[in-house]
Amino acid sequence: MTEALKSGATIGILGGGQLGRMLSVAASRLGFVTHIYEPGANPPAGQVADRLTTAGYEDAEALAAFAASVDVITYEFENIPTAALDILESHRPIRPGREALRISQDRLTEKNFLQDLGLKTAPFADITDQASLDTALAEIGAPAILKTRRFGYDGKGQARIKTLDDAQQALGDMAGAPALLEGFITFSHEVSVIAARGIKGDVSCYDPGENVHTDGILDTTTVPAKLSAGQRMDAVLLAANILNKLDYVGVMGVELFVTPQGLVVNEIAPRVHNSGHWTQNGCTVDQFEQHIRAVVGWPLGDGQRHSDVVMENLIGDDMDRVPELAKEADCALHLYGKAEVKPGRKMGHVNRVIRSQSK
Amino acid sequence: MTEALKSGATIGILGGGQLGRMLSVAASRLGFVTHIYEPGANPPAGQVADRLTTAGYEDAEALAAFAASVDVITYEFENIPTAALDILESHRPIRPGREALRISQDRLTEKNFLQDLGLKTAPFADITDQASLDTALAEIGAPAILKTRRFGYDGKGQARIKTLDDAQQALGDMAGAPALLEGFITFSHEVSVIAARGIKGDVSCYDPGENVHTDGILDTTTVPAKLSAGQRMDAVLLAANILNKLDYVGVMGVELFVTPQGLVVNEIAPRVHNSGHWTQNGCTVDQFEQHIRAVVGWPLGDGQRHSDVVMENLIGDDMDRVPELAKEADCALHLYGKAEVKPGRKMGHVNRVIRSQSK
Repeated sequence: MTEALKSGATIGILGGGQLGRMLSVAASRLGFVTHIYEPGANPPAGQVADRLTTAGYEDAEALAAFAASVDVITYEFENIPTAALDILESHRPIRPGREALRISQDRLTEKNFLQDLGLKTAPFADITDQASLDTALAEIGAPAILKTRRFGYDGKGQARIKTLDDAQQALGDMAGAPALLEGFITFSHEVSVIAARGIKGDVSCYDPGENVHTDGILDTTTVPAKLSAGQRMDAVLLAANILNKLDYVGVMGVELFVTPQGLVVNEIAPRVHNSGHWTQNGCTVDQFEQHIRAVVGWPLGDGQRHSDVVMENLIGDDMDRVPELAKEADCALHLYGKAEVKPGRKMGHVNRVIRSQSK
Repeated sequence: MTEALKSGATIGILGGGQLGRMLSVAASRLGFVTHIYEPGANPPAGQVADRLTTAGYEDAEALAAFAASVDVITYEFENIPTAALDILESHRPIRPGREALRISQDRLTEKNFLQDLGLKTAPFADITDQASLDTALAEIGAPAILKTRRFGYDGKGQARIKTLDDAQQALGDMAGAPALLEGFITFSHEVSVIAARGIKGDVSCYDPGENVHTDGILDTTTVPAKLSAGQRMDAVLLAANILNKLDYVGVMGVELFVTPQGLVVNEIAPRVHNSGHWTQNGCTVDQFEQHIRAVVGWPLGDGQRHSDVVMENLIGDDMDRVPELAKEADCALHLYGKAEVKPGRKMGHVNRVIRSQSK
């Protein structure tokens, strides 16, 4: 399928969290119907999608039925088991494609891919046992972070290592899971580029946003980011470089550290990204619609930023602030419909729009 | 229920067309769950709502079950049978309230209500038979329009009368339905005010838009409208006057003719309105979210216009233009997911955003 799907076609989305939910809403704005595949009960995306399949990624029958019911498949998270992808792809195209998933599912593969592209990353080493950890620590130095190679997000599957005791403890906690050690680098701040590539290879990037994390979870994204014109251009070009190399179709989040030595790639996510939520109120076509446009083969939309925005995540008890936030002018609320509030759980976000003075 | 509903509550929406669809999406943005009630099969709103009840307005059991499953009830159209409203209201509050429906369901009642408020309307007369039509025509003059008192929209249930022969024909076509005769008035252009009133009586109006109709169907809405500062203030104040008189809760569309003698009220619609679609890309909080905020008892959102917008309806074959429209910069597409294209059918709309020069 290289032709554009017509409005009215069905888009299958793997994952029913808030990203799947906002993708689903964006798809509906263009007249597309969505079908969510999600193992968990009552997913947020289920409330706004036309259809919901509740089944696991090991359920071959459910996967095949899901794939057969849609015209194209996309996803809200990168950790989809390979066997499930094989079944799905035998029925319908998966966008972004398998190569992007293969690389981003494994932190070591991702780092090697980025280095092969000539991009800077934090120093890293493959960890297979205590001996390799000792060697890596000696080379990279402490403090450093031990990370599982697979299935990490929002700071999960990570341990900070300051001493040799920490190292032993952390490796034990990983219980034999493949891991890598990452060195710290000195950076002034973190930015991210939300980049999109269409089916014909056209690339469009949103203006980079500046991210602040608290306890490993994104707290705020501010646009415009503190960047020189040269840094801004570097950021956008290196993102385009990554997307082109992967023959990528869809939206990708590229996290960058700003250092005196230039931009260092922290990680890439082959999907819409929390640091791109500001586009909902800062651009005519937001990252969710941009992703949908790409995966259905439509031309990419206009990604120009029309307003400055500060996006703030609402996490856990932040939900108690909603009645006050609802009164604020130029404050756009986006809540995810999650029934249960838990500490650290992303419940919604708010985009504070800063208008130009002339209006 | 005078307290604010919490994010996560369920909103029942009567009617599953594009207005119900966009209300449903707006509700989901605030974390509310929606349940659509619609007699027709495969309604556009069903694709984006959590639940859909397919049943008629004479089905007392389905109405009661629907009402019991939601926390508050609103609607996308005003012609809901009174008996159905009685059943629904015995279970849950209906917002906007019954008085607004009683008045807007009947063109004669509406005209009398507006005149009692001291507002200008086109000349009109109650028509019960040929004799009353003859008298009215003599008084109002030809051309004039004979309209059914109830169940009209988009130019339906209307006949233009130029001669006495026309009059006889038109009255025959009405088949005894209660009717009124309306005179023409000379106006330079039509504008509409999308006004909102919260549960505590706070009123907020969007900047009036200027409407152009083709064949009785809205074609474009342009903001800002051609209005003097005085006319703009008059428009907003008379709309607030109407909402306050009705103790209204929700969004209302107020259509006005601009004449040398001042503003003349054409009609009111107790719901979100086609001429308010521009707010989706011209304001932080659009008319759909504003309506939801009102009916759940939240504070009204910021209705400030941040950009100029030209909204154009996509009707019937206009859908063929979608691939070209998708390429245009600052052009926001909103498609309704209707399976079948029919002449005169509203399939979607496009908001062309005109940014201020400073950005």
